[in-house]
Amino acid sequence: MSQQSAFEYLRHGQAPFFRLPLCDVQAADRYHGSDVVLVGVPTDAGTTYQPGARLAPWALRRVSALVQSYHATAGIDVFQTLVCRDGGNVAFPPFDRGAMRDAVQAEVAAIVRAGAVPIVVGGDHSVALPALRAIHAAHGPVAIVHVDAHLDTSSADTWGDEFHHGTPMRHIIREGLAEAGQLYHVGIRGSWSGADDAEVTLDAGNRIFFIDEVVARGMPHLCAELRERIGRRPTYLSFDVDAIDPAFAPGTGTPVPGGLDAREALALVRGLAGVRLVGADLCEVSPALDHADLTAHLGVAVIYEALALIAMHRVHDA
Amino acid sequence: MSQQSAFEYLRHGQAPFFRLPLCDVQAADRYHGSDVVLVGVPTDAGTTYQPGARLAPWALRRVSALVQSYHATAGIDVFQTLVCRDGGNVAFPPFDRGAMRDAVQAEVAAIVRAGAVPIVVGGDHSVALPALRAIHAAHGPVAIVHVDAHLDTSSADTWGDEFHHGTPMRHIIREGLAEAGQLYHVGIRGSWSGADDAEVTLDAGNRIFFIDEVVARGMPHLCAELRERIGRRPTYLSFDVDAIDPAFAPGTGTPVPGGLDAREALALVRGLAGVRLVGADLCEVSPALDHADLTAHLGVAVIYEALALIAMHRVHDA
Amino acid sequence: MSQQSAFEYLRHGQAPFFRLPLCDVQAADRYHGSDVVLVGVPTDAGTTYQPGARLAPWALRRVSALVQSYHATAGIDVFQTLVCRDGGNVAFPPFDRGAMRDAVQAEVAAIVRAGAVPIVVGGDHSVALPALRAIHAAHGPVAIVHVDAHLDTSSADTWGDEFHHGTPMRHIIREGLAEAGQLYHVGIRGSWSGADDAEVTLDAGNRIFFIDEVVARGMPHLCAELRERIGRRPTYLSFDVDAIDPAFAPGTGTPVPGGLDAREALALVRGLAGVRLVGADLCEVSPALDHADLTAHLGVAVIYEALALIAMHRVHDA
Amino acid sequence: MSQQSAFEYLRHGQAPFFRLPLCDVQAADRYHGSDVVLVGVPTDAGTTYQPGARLAPWALRRVSALVQSYHATAGIDVFQTLVCRDGGNVAFPPFDRGAMRDAVQAEVAAIVRAGAVPIVVGGDHSVALPALRAIHAAHGPVAIVHVDAHLDTSSADTWGDEFHHGTPMRHIIREGLAEAGQLYHVGIRGSWSGADDAEVTLDAGNRIFFIDEVVARGMPHLCAELRERIGRRPTYLSFDVDAIDPAFAPGTGTPVPGGLDAREALALVRGLAGVRLVGADLCEVSPALDHADLTAHLGVAVIYEALALIAMHRVHDA
Amino acid sequence: MSQQSAFEYLRHGQAPFFRLPLCDVQAADRYHGSDVVLVGVPTDAGTTYQPGARLAPWALRRVSALVQSYHATAGIDVFQTLVCRDGGNVAFPPFDRGAMRDAVQAEVAAIVRAGAVPIVVGGDHSVALPALRAIHAAHGPVAIVHVDAHLDTSSADTWGDEFHHGTPMRHIIREGLAEAGQLYHVGIRGSWSGADDAEVTLDAGNRIFFIDEVVARGMPHLCAELRERIGRRPTYLSFDVDAIDPAFAPGTGTPVPGGLDAREALALVRGLAGVRLVGADLCEVSPALDHADLTAHLGVAVIYEALALIAMHRVHDA
Amino acid sequence: MSQQSAFEYLRHGQAPFFRLPLCDVQAADRYHGSDVVLVGVPTDAGTTYQPGARLAPWALRRVSALVQSYHATAGIDVFQTLVCRDGGNVAFPPFDRGAMRDAVQAEVAAIVRAGAVPIVVGGDHSVALPALRAIHAAHGPVAIVHVDAHLDTSSADTWGDEFHHGTPMRHIIREGLAEAGQLYHVGIRGSWSGADDAEVTLDAGNRIFFIDEVVARGMPHLCAELRERIGRRPTYLSFDVDAIDPAFAPGTGTPVPGGLDAREALALVRGLAGVRLVGADLCEVSPALDHADLTAHLGVAVIYEALALIAMHRVHDA
Repeated sequence: MSQQSAFEYLRHGQAPFFRLPLCDVQAADRYHGSDVVLVGVPTDAGTTYQPGARLAPWALRRVSALVQSYHATAGIDVFQTLVCRDGGNVAFPPFDRGAMRDAVQAEVAAIVRAGAVPIVVGGDHSVALPALRAIHAAHGPVAIVHVDAHLDTSSADTWGDEFHHGTPMRHIIREGLAEAGQLYHVGIRGSWSGADDAEVTLDAGNRIFFIDEVVARGMPHLCAELRERIGRRPTYLSFDVDAIDPAFAPGTGTPVPGGLDAREALALVRGLAGVRLVGADLCEVSPALDHADLTAHLGVAVIYEALALIAMHRVHDA
Repeated sequence: MSQQSAFEYLRHGQAPFFRLPLCDVQAADRYHGSDVVLVGVPTDAGTTYQPGARLAPWALRRVSALVQSYHATAGIDVFQTLVCRDGGNVAFPPFDRGAMRDAVQAEVAAIVRAGAVPIVVGGDHSVALPALRAIHAAHGPVAIVHVDAHLDTSSADTWGDEFHHGTPMRHIIREGLAEAGQLYHVGIRGSWSGADDAEVTLDAGNRIFFIDEVVARGMPHLCAELRERIGRRPTYLSFDVDAIDPAFAPGTGTPVPGGLDAREALALVRGLAGVRLVGADLCEVSPALDHADLTAHLGVAVIYEALALIAMHRVHDA
Repeated sequence: MSQQSAFEYLRHGQAPFFRLPLCDVQAADRYHGSDVVLVGVPTDAGTTYQPGARLAPWALRRVSALVQSYHATAGIDVFQTLVCRDGGNVAFPPFDRGAMRDAVQAEVAAIVRAGAVPIVVGGDHSVALPALRAIHAAHGPVAIVHVDAHLDTSSADTWGDEFHHGTPMRHIIREGLAEAGQLYHVGIRGSWSGADDAEVTLDAGNRIFFIDEVVARGMPHLCAELRERIGRRPTYLSFDVDAIDPAFAPGTGTPVPGGLDAREALALVRGLAGVRLVGADLCEVSPALDHADLTAHLGVAVIYEALALIAMHRVHDA
Repeated sequence: MSQQSAFEYLRHGQAPFFRLPLCDVQAADRYHGSDVVLVGVPTDAGTTYQPGARLAPWALRRVSALVQSYHATAGIDVFQTLVCRDGGNVAFPPFDRGAMRDAVQAEVAAIVRAGAVPIVVGGDHSVALPALRAIHAAHGPVAIVHVDAHLDTSSADTWGDEFHHGTPMRHIIREGLAEAGQLYHVGIRGSWSGADDAEVTLDAGNRIFFIDEVVARGMPHLCAELRERIGRRPTYLSFDVDAIDPAFAPGTGTPVPGGLDAREALALVRGLAGVRLVGADLCEVSPALDHADLTAHLGVAVIYEALALIAMHRVHDA
Repeated sequence: MSQQSAFEYLRHGQAPFFRLPLCDVQAADRYHGSDVVLVGVPTDAGTTYQPGARLAPWALRRVSALVQSYHATAGIDVFQTLVCRDGGNVAFPPFDRGAMRDAVQAEVAAIVRAGAVPIVVGGDHSVALPALRAIHAAHGPVAIVHVDAHLDTSSADTWGDEFHHGTPMRHIIREGLAEAGQLYHVGIRGSWSGADDAEVTLDAGNRIFFIDEVVARGMPHLCAELRERIGRRPTYLSFDVDAIDPAFAPGTGTPVPGGLDAREALALVRGLAGVRLVGADLCEVSPALDHADLTAHLGVAVIYEALALIAMHRVHDA
Repeated sequence: MSQQSAFEYLRHGQAPFFRLPLCDVQAADRYHGSDVVLVGVPTDAGTTYQPGARLAPWALRRVSALVQSYHATAGIDVFQTLVCRDGGNVAFPPFDRGAMRDAVQAEVAAIVRAGAVPIVVGGDHSVALPALRAIHAAHGPVAIVHVDAHLDTSSADTWGDEFHHGTPMRHIIREGLAEAGQLYHVGIRGSWSGADDAEVTLDAGNRIFFIDEVVARGMPHLCAELRERIGRRPTYLSFDVDAIDPAFAPGTGTPVPGGLDAREALALVRGLAGVRLVGADLCEVSPALDHADLTAHLGVAVIYEALALIAMHRVHDA
């Protein structure tokens, strides 16, 4: 069950992720037999500045048609190795964040129950919390590689709300979804409201890799440290596209200059080779702010590297 | 208390609506002595398709600096005639629609209590409901000129939600905020889910002016009918910028081809001369989708015509 | 077999035309039981100036999701009345114009054989020739309403080529696909290489409605003339989006200022009520040149009006 | 000396106006034998709001390559009838407005001396004053059709400067370059600083056609009045592209909603048939603010209509 | 006198720099008690290619609202440590460069007299000369870190003008505003008119750091050299945003490929830690050419790093 | 025969490459006496995804006007050292790829016969094959530095066509235009259809430098290897702008994230110093997808570095 050929793709006229087969969204056993299921979550109701990420699943599907199956430098045929499917979107009223959380949690749980790795394509970063709740239910506390310009540990103080897109890591820590000391924030930069923005995560023993450290040490060394610290723990990758510099990823709602470049972003995922990925999200692509699909293409490339990671793990480590 | 000169405006470096004096938002009597107060409502949490209208108040303020005081064809100096002020924005968490409604209602009530006419600059069209609740508290049921591509009478059926931006007119009718038969929908077009989309408003005796009728009869005749039907009733103008054709107003979230052109939009407001305006809103400008500020300039021009209407009423009819 | 609900649409995460059911492109009887089939033709190999129309089928499908079933002013539920399906795209190498013509002709022939009306979504205007060859095979010479800024009667003299996007009407006339005197060019304007650009069509007794005549007479009168001249002939609508003024349809490759406005474009199709439509195309939308999907939305609205035309004919005239 | 063919144009790889022959800018007699000379003036040093018009001559040349020689509705082959040439640009330091005025006046004088009609492609509207000084030197006071959203009669009061782009008509009146009562302002709209903005021109007996009057009477009637009033006077057309609605002409620095549509803009020039044009300018196209070359194409179309006017006058009235 | 909270900011509806308090521009003692004053200079009258920088102060203010007070890697709360204020804009006719220079010099002098550090937000680079004249009056010859793609040492030869945006460094050297040997040009690249473009600055003993040297040595080493050379001299930072690669800063008028990336730009300012900054400018942001506010956000980030520098100096070195 | 001055350039109003003299395209000896001739090839008929590169020659000419003659870091005056000319475009029907290949081959042959180095400005990458056929006719098999994200070794299997823009390197290898082992692919990345995509070139002994190797080794080391391997062989540079990361070169049809940055792209060309360049192409710039001319400026900078390379070779190695 590999990719459609270019001709099949053109012929169908639709844009599933990576020209993959579509799940029958009515079928109870729709995820059965899949290794990986990609689902979109069209939400931006938790955005604090510029919204628009709700439209990302369509934009990412569209440009993902350009990706082919064989990963030349990894030397692996991703869609021959893995049974990947497009699970459609999680659907809910676009302005109801509670309904979104419930629906995402249920969907990810269903994917996990079927033995597949869920890849959640946001939407804003609020999708990480329900995804991790479902992951936790199956795997217990996991390691989390959280790639982001922001810590996402805000409390209700700033905006009078507990569940906006700047809060998921606070909940994830508080609810014990990440193993203590196993939440890694990579790409952090910009200004904070105060020194205590980081308290909740530092108190839990977690590690912040500021962008300056990324630059100073180089991505390979940083990845080596991540791999060593994580070991064989089940791991979740939560990738907020604003970790990447706005020049490479202009289509996002809360840009912060000075981020990862595209090669570092891809190298970071590739550098996790050997880590056991049990789930991932790619968030905060906002198509209306994008240009020439820069951010969509890069978001898709990040997901493709994650798929290659899972494929290689399947071949080499399983 | 007229406009800042161009030099004053440049010197202050800020962008209040129409270079107007700013209210001291801390002062209890901040609206005292005003004829008109403009307030922004940065919300788009009720958007069903493309969000972004939360950023409209800044965009509209910025381009409103180009508008000068004297209305050449009306022959009236708007900002000499009226004491107009920029009341700042209504503030609330960007994702809490209940809090938004409460805050807008309270603010509009405060403006009305001070004897001023409130002009609410959205934000998505959800702002109309709380504005009209406050208007109703002071004036009782009013006439409403609702300019829009959509009826905004949706129920919770479509999106599982009672209060999104496609619902305000249903609530306004149900809560009796509009006098029966005195809600005029102008510019309606596009496709509906079914014939009963219009039921709630037709049952209340209201009138739909489809765009085809606007074209066939011409705006002057249509305005004459509106003026005659409305008479001396207190009237609220609710202007969704998507009533205007997307060529003239591309910066909006749910565009529908075939709308009003810019001249008709302005002529419609101007054609209400003599009507007693007790409040107005201008909604659904979405700056990220705009080009060359087309929609922002046009939204501002609509507001300016409404101000001229109030000024002329003050001079001629009061 | 009506439209998907908004929730179904979101859930599937795909973008078929108008949220319609997809044909199984492998099934031999895939068009069986359809009243109308929409197919995309992703080609722009015949473009003389700015290409890009090959990507239109995806753009038009995407924004067509906003259209609902009920046509409020016609008072007809389009997708309840007609069995409409998305037939996918016609596929061929993107640079082989001969292969494109063969494939489009075959596909349209298959749709016609199944008793359905084909609606061809280009791509550049080269798609009209093979579509009409297939139509002609079934219906003989037809009436053609050709909406365009250009006559499309160029010979090989200008570009050394017989089959670029400025030539289809020359071939259609020469091959007798249009009944003599029954090819109507509407919206023609701009400059020509010489007076004899029009010879081939005028010699065939056809009629050119320059944009000036459209303006002077008004669209209702022009449509009345068209309806009367056409009578009960089987009719094909060939709609080049550059007939519309670039302000309303910026996303097209050879823009000519001074065209139809959006309301006239829609009124033109609506004004053909009673005409028996046996096929249609909508061409030359170039998404890379579009802004805020203006052209895509308007192209979709034109197609929707054509569907409503067919639906009304089914109800009233069949 | 007609247009280059499409192949010649491609082959040269350059973009002269309308694919016309270039003057040898070193030759003293370079305008000799021309009927019309087009010169660019890359200046925006007089802009009060958004600059950028200095780059218009390149943008307009580029898109003018799409225009062909034969004017289908006028039935005249423009570039066969007239010897038209591209005279290059007038060159001067981009920030020296005095030098610009001197250089433009000298160049236009040279064109006029050679017996040709100068068409000045701005740049901002400051180019009108020196062009008219040169015209006046040859023809004495002329009739001026001034198409604009603004009166351009500002004094030094607003910006502390006598010669910005909002002032040319004041100088033109004061210096007697227009015959008293023969300056026609068409398309005027928007807000003014006060009623006396119009004093200088009304005192000179000139006529303001507000956009409302244009709409109410229709362009044909308005043009008939213009033709009758002007008679056989030598006439200058000064066309500020912001006369046109920003939807049709977004690429301009001081947009005012509610202007002419593209068809009216073209009909206005066409409606001057019979008038003796002795010079023209097309100003205020700002490419950085344009989209899909809308404004550039429309500006070029206005110039083409002016050329057709001259050609027809040559044939019919000379 | 720290930043407004997010709610205060929303409530006021205005966009001062960094949500800072506004100076009362009428008050004679308006800068009294400030540590830093930011003033905008809306000018681009000295631009040689694409203008538009006059609109930068509004764009930069708008996006600066996203910056918070605490600098996480420096570990300092910038707006708690320093009394920073928004001084509004310097106002003058937009086309009068002499008036601009006089006004900027006077304003910067006033800020310096009040004991505050002026940060001048251009506008084009012409603002550097008057700013440095005022700085010189108070501090004598200073060290200047000039970050730019261009040397800005042009004479009147190229454009027949002494004071355009490519000339300030020539004047600064000639007028002795920089200490000989203490003008550092960083980021220089691209083509020159000839080898002698650099003469005036090399003859003065100054140092050019071509981009190639920046890359080869790395920013930390280059900054170490700068710090050592500068020592405790009063220092002015003149930052032309075109020093940065156009991918990161597309919104500028004379882009040169191959510049600093965003991280280097920020590291450069940060690397001046310990240097005594007595003034700074940030120039040449041109909003009309920007995309998704990339350049505005980055310009603001550069200013924020300069503020952090001053704050740290206040704490550690004063 | 050096560059026009800025004033000459402005005066002529045309945009030849680098303000260079134009060849008289009618003259048989038009290339006589030239060291380098630049020709545009306006074709994109071989594009598989997003077309538009046909318009690149105009865009690149336009922005090349900003480049000056003196290369500051190489210390050479390029246009004083070399007689460079703009040879116009190669002209052919925009949709006839066979005619394009014949015309390009003939033109490049004519340039080579005149003793000049041809620089071919595409258009899509299909131009490389005919250019190299002409080069081969004069020089025999050459070394080729192929800078690209893609190998361009596709067969007819994918798209049913032998000569699209993804195939030139297959033909070049098969036809023996490159010396075996002397085709260097630099910047390769992204996904492939399978491992055998590289077979044809690896079997010929050629070398692939994946982007990861470029990053790991650094451009200087990679260039040293290239120089050593190539030695004194005649060398052709084939530069597909999509080798560069889309952040730096968004205006291209098949973007692949993670490419060269602008400095590496320029350093790569500069790093070939000493290599004997006998021809070059710069392809796949697609202006409609560009923003703020980023890609056009960078493409021009790559060409300028190639010119400097030739100039230095002339001075130092000839």
